[in-house]
This record gives sequence, C-alpha cells and structure tokens, in this order.
Amino acid sequence: MRRHDHQTTQADLTAGAVLAPYLQDQAAEFLRSLRLHRENSAPTDAGSHGAEEAAGALRRSSRRIGGTLHTFRAALDATWAEQLRTELAWLSGTLAREHAYATRLNRLLEALHALSGTSLPTARNGSDGATDKERAALGVGAARAGALLERQLTLARTRAHSAALQALGSSRFHAVADAVALLASEVPLAPAAAAPAEEMLHGPADRAEQQLLGAVAALPSGQAVEPYNEAQDAPWHRTRLLLRLHRYAHEVVRGAPDPVLAAPGHALDLHRDASEAAAAAASAARTPRIAPATAYALGVLHADQRHEVTAARGVFRTSWPYAAAVIAP
Amino acid sequence: MRRHDHQTTQADLTAGAVLAPYLQDQAAEFLRSLRLHRENSAPTDAGSHGAEEAAGALRRSSRRIGGTLHTFRAALDATWAEQLRTELAWLSGTLAREHAYATRLNRLLEALHALSGTSLPTARNGSDGATDKERAALGVGAARAGALLERQLTLARTRAHSAALQALGSSRFHAVADAVALLASEVPLAPAAAAPAEEMLHGPADRAEQQLLGAVAALPSGQAVEPYNEAQDAPWHRTRLLLRLHRYAHEVVRGAPDPVLAAPGHALDLHRDASEAAAAAASAARTPRIAPATAYALGVLHADQRHEVTAARGVFRTSWPYAAAVIAP
Repeated sequence: MRRHDHQTTQADLTAGAVLAPYLQDQAAEFLRSLRLHRENSAPTDAGSHGAEEAAGALRRSSRRIGGTLHTFRAALDATWAEQLRTELAWLSGTLAREHAYATRLNRLLEALHALSGTSLPTARNGSDGATDKERAALGVGAARAGALLERQLTLARTRAHSAALQALGSSRFHAVADAVALLASEVPLAPAAAAPAEEMLHGPADRAEQQLLGAVAALPSGQAVEPYNEAQDAPWHRTRLLLRLHRYAHEVVRGAPDPVLAAPGHALDLHRDASEAAAAAASAARTPRIAPATAYALGVLHADQRHEVTAARGVFRTSWPYAAAVIAP
Repeated sequence: MRRHDHQTTQADLTAGAVLAPYLQDQAAEFLRSLRLHRENSAPTDAGSHGAEEAAGALRRSSRRIGGTLHTFRAALDATWAEQLRTELAWLSGTLAREHAYATRLNRLLEALHALSGTSLPTARNGSDGATDKERAALGVGAARAGALLERQLTLARTRAHSAALQALGSSRFHAVADAVALLASEVPLAPAAAAPAEEMLHGPADRAEQQLLGAVAALPSGQAVEPYNEAQDAPWHRTRLLLRLHRYAHEVVRGAPDPVLAAPGHALDLHRDASEAAAAAASAARTPRIAPATAYALGVLHADQRHEVTAARGVFRTSWPYAAAVIAP
C-alpha cells in the first residue's frame, strides 16, 4: 500500500468536506464542457475538433463523478448516488463510442500502412518467386482492406455521432444535466459524511486499491499467453476499469492521481485499443464477397493487432510498480 | 575473444596432425551415413525415417568438411580443397531441401492449429456479432489454408526428395563420394601444414570468430526492427552461416564446439525457419482463386511467423554471450 507511506493531509476534515469540493469541481467541469460542446457541435458533420475535445472533457468528468459516487457511496445519499451513477455511465458510454470508432480506424490504417511493405520483401527474399504483378496484387489487398475498414468504421462512427447528438437532446440527458447542475451547488451527503475523512473515505479508497491489486495478481502469467485467445482479454479490461476507479479514489483522498500508475494505466488503454482493433479487422474479414487479397491483408492486420495486445501486457507488467505482479512479461 | 582464456592443448602438434584426424573422422562419418542412406532409401515414398536420419548425418559431415576446407585452406591443397568444398555445398544444399519443406509444413500446420481459435474469441468478445455460421466459416478458412499448404509443401517436398535421390545417383555425386573416400584415408595437406597448429590454425580460427563478431555487431538494433521488412532477414541468415563456420573451426582447434554459442545458434535456426515459413504462407496466399477465408487465415499465419522471426532475434540477443552485441532485444 503506497498510500501508507504518505502523510494524509485531511486528518482533521470531515468526509463531506473532502468529498463535496471534489464532486462540485467535477460537476462544474461537466457543465463547462457541456456548454463548449453545444457551441462547437454541428449536427451535420461528424464532430468538429472543438466538439470532440468537449465530448472528451464531458466523458472525463462523468467518469470521475460516477466513480466517486460508487466508491464513496457510504458517505452519500445512496439512492441518489446509485441513480446518478447509472445515468452518467449511460452518458459517457454513449459519448465514448464515436471517439472509439475514430481511434480504431486511425490505429488500423496506421498499422496497415506499416504492414503494406509485407509482400515486397517476401518477394525479395527469393525463397518464393513473387513477380511484380503478385506484389502489386498484395499492395492492392492492403489498400482495399484500408478502404473497407474506412467505409465500415466511418459509417459506425457517423451513426455513433448521431446517437450521441440524439442522446444530448433527449429528456433523459436533460435530467442528468439538471442533477449535475444541482450537484455543482449542493452535494447530497449522508449523515455519515460528518465523520472524519480518515474514517469514512480511506477505508473505501483502500478497498478500491485492494480490488485493483487482486485483479492484477489474478492476471494470467506471461507464459500462459495465447496471443489469439481473445477471451483472455476480459480480465485485462476489468483491471483497466479497476485501475481507473482507484485513480479517482486517489484523486479524492490525496488530491491528485497516483503518478506510479500512469504508465500501467496507459498500457491497459493500449491493450483495450489493440484488442478492439483486432476484432474490427476480423469482423471486416467476414464481409461477404471481398477479394482474397483483401482478406489476406485483414488477416495480417488482425494478427498484428493481437501481437500489440500481447506487447501491451508486457509493458503493463514491466511498468507495474507493485512487487505482487512482477510476473515475467 | 573467449578462446584466449583457454590453454591450448595442441601447442606441440603440427597443423596437419590436428587437421587430418578431424577431416578423416568427418569423412568416415560421411561414408557411414551414405551407406545407411542407401540401406534405408525407397525411391517410391518420400524418405523413411532411417533415410531422413542418414541424410541429416550426411549433411552434417558435408558441412563440417566443407567448412574446415574453407577456414583452413592455407594448410591444405588449395585447388583440391576449393573444388571439394563447392561439391559438398552442392550436395548438402540438395539434401537440405527435402528436410526444409518437411520442417516448414510442420511449423505452419502447428501454428495454424494454435491460431485456429482466433475467430471464436473475436465473436465472443461481443464488440462484433459473429454468428456461429461466421465462426464456422473462419474455422473452415484455417482448415482450408492448412490443406492448401499441405498440398503445396508436400508436392515441393516430394520433388526435393526425387531431386535428392537423382543427385545421389549422379556421376557428380559419385565423384564427391570418391573424393571423400580418399580423404578418409589420406588428407591432401599443403607443405605449410608441417608448421605448428598454433601458428597455422589459430589465425584462421580467430578470423572466423572475428567475422562472426563483426556480423553480429552490424545487426540492426531491436528498436530498428520492422517485423514485416523481410529484407532485414538477410544479415541474420548470414550471421547464422558465420556462426556455423566458427563452430566448426572451434571443433577443429579445441576438439569440441563452443558451448556458449549453442543457444544463439539455435535462435538463428528458428529465425531462419520462421522467416521461410512466413514466406511460404505469403506465397500460398498468392494461389489464384482461393476463398477469402483461406486468404485471411494465411494472412494471420504470415504475420504470426513474422512475429516468431522478431521473437527469435530477441532470444538471440539475450543469449549472445559477448558484450559487443548486448543490444536491447
């Protein structure tokens, strides 16, 4: 437990005096980014840069409020907390989709670009006589795969964009926005929030950390990895979410995120991105009537992203600061 | 230079007295395996196990004799040495092909077997709704890719087998066999072979080691690796051959191979196998009129073998005993 090496700065404050300002700051941030998003959104095109930035900020504050409501629910009005948390999860999930499709497309096109050299050296290394025609054919495969992914993911992104705009116009969203506006002015605390922060907040924060440590310790070892067994990804995705909850709890209790978890957190984000990009390549390969060269390029792409998944796990293990999880990468 | 830590055991012997017994042992081994091969070969089927073993032993002694004739040519009848070396290279090259196709097919089928789980988890992880039908289709792709590779590489192997049998029946081969039979009884030494082994053999052996160290130092760093740039494989293949020449020179001068080079040598063999397997998968994907699912599986297979290539380089770097080449794997 690193936190025990620290000197707590809030021994003399009540739980409410620590929780309320954090939630109010995040609520203010939520409302600010919401305004920004409205100013920058054109329903016609798929999100201007300003709108994307605002949506990102909106997601960040939604996640922090939701995480805090979850971890420290004992110090808050339980029904209200649980209800708002559910709504914020719906909102950030809806907003996240558009961003995810955009990131996935960029990642896959960049990977394809790096891979499209594949066939030429095969030809060069002489062990099989690929002619210029064959090489051209494979180059075409990569280009076609890129065009196919661009079509499919741009379509998905546009749909996600409209869904997000629709959500932001819905009465369900307006209820969320009102709840957050109220939160910005007054936090519905439980009577228990009058107790010292030390007593009310450190226990839940420690539990959040324990759940993270437990999840990491339970991750399959580097040796056990089957790069193509995508069922193995789930515990890593779960660990990513627990790391996030721990980060927010740390922000509440310590006033800042835990710096040693930045690198492993980033590795888990890359893990998630590569895992989803691999799935998108596999799914594109199931498009009816595609050319073999296209399917071949998508197969290379799928395998490449699965190896990125494995690489991200290695980075996570080497950057993980707790001895508990020093497993051979 | 590790060898300078050792105490040479042959200070008082002439170069000829060290070189001759080594060459004669290898020549005897060559003739023994040739007999074994004749006893076990049926021209009909592609090599019985006994015949494969014998062919392997024949290749090993051919390589050792050839390498020794090359490294220590100054102590031997130059024209004879150069001529026999060329013929032995032709022979071991011809015999190696059948074995290479068999190894490549096994490696690719094993990899396909490990990969064929690919699609199911993609479906399971929910981010795209692959139906059982789609999954079946992709399973079929892996199965078809396996069948295609089996057809192509078994055909290539059978051709290599007949070519090997033809070579072993040729007058060119009988001339080689006669030369090796003569070598078994008498080694055509140069007058210089009367000089001390220390003087005549250690120089060439050191040069063989220097060439190996130079080649390793010139290998591209782990950072510079582009997994799909198969043109980058060539310096590694060259290093593999130089390591082999060094091993044989070490056997001659020290009486045994250098144990610290066993692991890096094995890594370079795996590197070569994975590199050629990847090329075979890419070449199979250029078969006209294959199904997209087949091409997709071959793409996955190609990328997987290219990552095996990268992994083998990492193993080589970490197992390489000389500081000179401790590059980040």
